Amino acid sequence: MDHLHTFYTVIDLGGTFAFAISGAIAAKVKGLDIFGIIVVAFTVACGGGILRDISIGAIPPAGISDWRYLLTSLIAVGVALGFGPMLKLLNRPVILFDALGLSLFAVSGAEKALGYGHNYEVAVMLGILTAVGGGVIRDIFLNRIPVIFENEIYASAALLGALVVVAGDYFSIPNGWTFPLGFALCFVLRILALRYHWKLPSFNNSNKYSDGI
Amino acid sequence: MDHLHTFYTVIDLGGTFAFAISGAIAAKVKGLDIFGIIVVAFTVACGGGILRDISIGAIPPAGISDWRYLLTSLIAVGVALGFGPMLKLLNRPVILFDALGLSLFAVSGAEKALGYGHNYEVAVMLGILTAVGGGVIRDIFLNRIPVIFENEIYASAALLGALVVVAGDYFSIPNGWTFPLGFALCFVLRILALRYHWKLPSFNNSNKYSDGI
Amino acid sequence: MDHLHTFYTVIDLGGTFAFAISGAIAAKVKGLDIFGIIVVAFTVACGGGILRDISIGAIPPAGISDWRYLLTSLIAVGVALGFGPMLKLLNRPVILFDALGLSLFAVSGAEKALGYGHNYEVAVMLGILTAVGGGVIRDIFLNRIPVIFENEIYASAALLGALVVVAGDYFSIPNGWTFPLGFALCFVLRILALRYHWKLPSFNNSNKYSDGI
Repeated sequence: MDHLHTFYTVIDLGGTFAFAISGAIAAKVKGLDIFGIIVVAFTVACGGGILRDISIGAIPPAGISDWRYLLTSLIAVGVALGFGPMLKLLNRPVILFDALGLSLFAVSGAEKALGYGHNYEVAVMLGILTAVGGGVIRDIFLNRIPVIFENEIYASAALLGALVVVAGDYFSIPNGWTFPLGFALCFVLRILALRYHWKLPSFNNSNKYSDGI
Repeated sequence: MDHLHTFYTVIDLGGTFAFAISGAIAAKVKGLDIFGIIVVAFTVACGGGILRDISIGAIPPAGISDWRYLLTSLIAVGVALGFGPMLKLLNRPVILFDALGLSLFAVSGAEKALGYGHNYEVAVMLGILTAVGGGVIRDIFLNRIPVIFENEIYASAALLGALVVVAGDYFSIPNGWTFPLGFALCFVLRILALRYHWKLPSFNNSNKYSDGI
Repeated sequence: MDHLHTFYTVIDLGGTFAFAISGAIAAKVKGLDIFGIIVVAFTVACGGGILRDISIGAIPPAGISDWRYLLTSLIAVGVALGFGPMLKLLNRPVILFDALGLSLFAVSGAEKALGYGHNYEVAVMLGILTAVGGGVIRDIFLNRIPVIFENEIYASAALLGALVVVAGDYFSIPNGWTFPLGFALCFVLRILALRYHWKLPSFNNSNKYSDGI
């Protein structure tokens, strides 16, 4: 149990760092001050997990009771601000870090829900919520429609990662296999979708009929 | 108790369907992809109830632990996407479905809070929250000021429905009477307000004095 | 304990009144109807506290179970609507009331988290959340980037107030000293920051390099 707990923690902190980087960069570009950048970075990193913990009754949420999450977010802000030009050279670092965090949180979120004894639907829903919740809050803070709702394979990649964890539990496959598999499938799907511009269909062609209304 | 439970469930699923339809149509018009449409539809349908459940300690919230809510939302999305042109012909179906969901959720939200042993204020507040919470989240997702805050008899209709349930509990009138009555009063008030353009007063005439500030 | 409880309640209701005034004025200026004004006023006043109570497991949140908060919000709406022109003459009353509420909530939020047995990080985080949560929700409702994220000494003043309470607990200094001290330091910092236009640094100079991207 203790090794497993360490494993969860490493996954959680890795995802926290990745998401905080993406939040800090987005907030910096919007011209927020240092406190605003920290809040947005922390919220992107921990927002999904806090919503998950509140939903499963893990009170107080780990995001605000475990100082390592806050420290990780602060380090990520330092990196994002200190290495800004370098991050720029790396080309779309936000999106890469985002894909890492997405995959890590989908898997760990589903597992934590199962660990609290909840059913498979809760695990899948909260895997997705953990993965995309922080980003949705970020976009609400930055006053735009959450990007995950528009023509991207993003939440659906998180769905895939969470489903692997749930399937692993159903077929009693050890975590050591399903964690890396769920993470890898989610990450690869996300990266391929970005690389080849895969999109989910939208249906707003009804606009054709609604001119002048 | 079992009959009552079935009754609650039917009411909840009916409201879920109605709200999910309205969410799916709004998301479709905004051009979101299929996953975004499902998320918005589900959130409109279950968001208010999830906030209610978190507030009364019903963990995990029924919206994410009971597969029937998700299935109902998915069916509603299918109907909204498949019968889009027909929904258009029906003229303002979003508003009609919205009024149905509003009335159902105001009544069931207040009742569930009472069922968990909370006081009348909690019941009224959570009846309104259940009824309008999903729509408020929808508008936040779609990046606009929640429509319920602007010149509409909407949340006030939910207030009426919740008050009927609370009054029924206070005077020990059976649910079988107060549920349909609260639902009907809320629905009729909402529809009449739409039909005759009843509005609540606003007070922004102070703008007269603030030109140039 | 009873005296302490009374003291908390007075602080909470004072902050509630101050924040509700600021929420009501902002909602009125935006042209919301009377119900929208009440909802925004109540949400600004109690939103942060409700999020805090949900995070520490104080269910149902005091904001919706204690009628005094709702009554206080309603009175504040009456004052804001009835004395609108007078408030105008008082010059920037929103900002003054806001600073009072900020200071009161930072201190009481941190104290309540400690009272529920949570650690110092939770206390500081929830002190800030209680203080700024309602204002963030207000700005999300009014469809703008939360003002606290942009170049203002605001949340950082709340951090100072909450830190004083936590330090007082650590050094076993009685509440009677740390409460007024934390409140005063937070309030003075906020007012000085407004008076002398103190700002936190922002880092969006990266825009220089990103023209045309």
